[in-house]
Amino acid sequence: MGVATEAKLEATIFKPFQGPTVLILELSTPTSAVDTIELRSIIKDAHALTFRSVENRTVAGFVLFFPNYSTFLAKPGFYIEDWYVRECFRGSGFGTLLLKSKAHLAVELDNGRVEWCVLDWNSKAIKFYEGISAKLHPEWCICRLTGKSLDVCGA
Amino acid sequence: MGVATEAKLEATIFKPFQGPTVLILELSTPTSAVDTIELRSIIKDAHALTFRSVENRTVAGFVLFFPNYSTFLAKPGFYIEDWYVRECFRGSGFGTLLLKSKAHLAVELDNGRVEWCVLDWNSKAIKFYEGISAKLHPEWCICRLTGKSLDVCGA
Repeated sequence: MGVATEAKLEATIFKPFQGPTVLILELSTPTSAVDTIELRSIIKDAHALTFRSVENRTVAGFVLFFPNYSTFLAKPGFYIEDWYVRECFRGSGFGTLLLKSKAHLAVELDNGRVEWCVLDWNSKAIKFYEGISAKLHPEWCICRLTGKSLDVCGA
Repeated sequence: MGVATEAKLEATIFKPFQGPTVLILELSTPTSAVDTIELRSIIKDAHALTFRSVENRTVAGFVLFFPNYSTFLAKPGFYIEDWYVRECFRGSGFGTLLLKSKAHLAVELDNGRVEWCVLDWNSKAIKFYEGISAKLHPEWCICRLTGKSLDVCGA
């Protein structure tokens, strides 16, 4: 059971299922921006050249999500698997912008839920999530078959 | 925010995403069975006629799942949303059979995980899951935007 490498991600993420999607948060001039954030101060990005998109914009973060489904609601939804804002861009609302883009899409599609997971010790993240009125459900416990247990069960 | 009805399930479950899939567990004669279970005693099914499939077999249960994705493993997996065995068929290994079919498919496709959720007070289910070597992850807490919170965040 290996961990993620760029090659493995590239080889598996869009196959065999078309579900997972990555939304890249790029910085651009206001005229071409989909959404705009007013910065309180200028962000110094020492690695701006390293994090360039193919359109030559600076990548500030991303959100990776895929569709899920609730039989309770009889509606599809979105599960956010990964959500990242580069350190120098934190605290300016970029994370909220990424999440809101998913919530907006969910509302537009009449989906029932947007869900993700947080580690129970991550109080900083939990405070942020509660701040946007997300509800935490510690009563639901994730069960997982992986590695050797999965091999044994699936033999 | 309404709850599930047959019409709503039918209208939304395979749209707009093709991901969710339902596997129906049907009883049939050994010659046409995909898998066989040796019963310790004859099962009395008072509602056998009600639960008939289009092939005129008795439906004993189902599992509803959809693909998910782990960026940590760089592999797709399966999330089991719903899993049900009709009461008179419980205790004979039908639930395990349904789960094993998903684990088997995951192994075959080189997927990384099979996951589902359990309520933390459901000790009977937890004991069953631990019995098949599933690992519980209470440290991961589900965060959810739904109903009015989703509408507000997605406005």
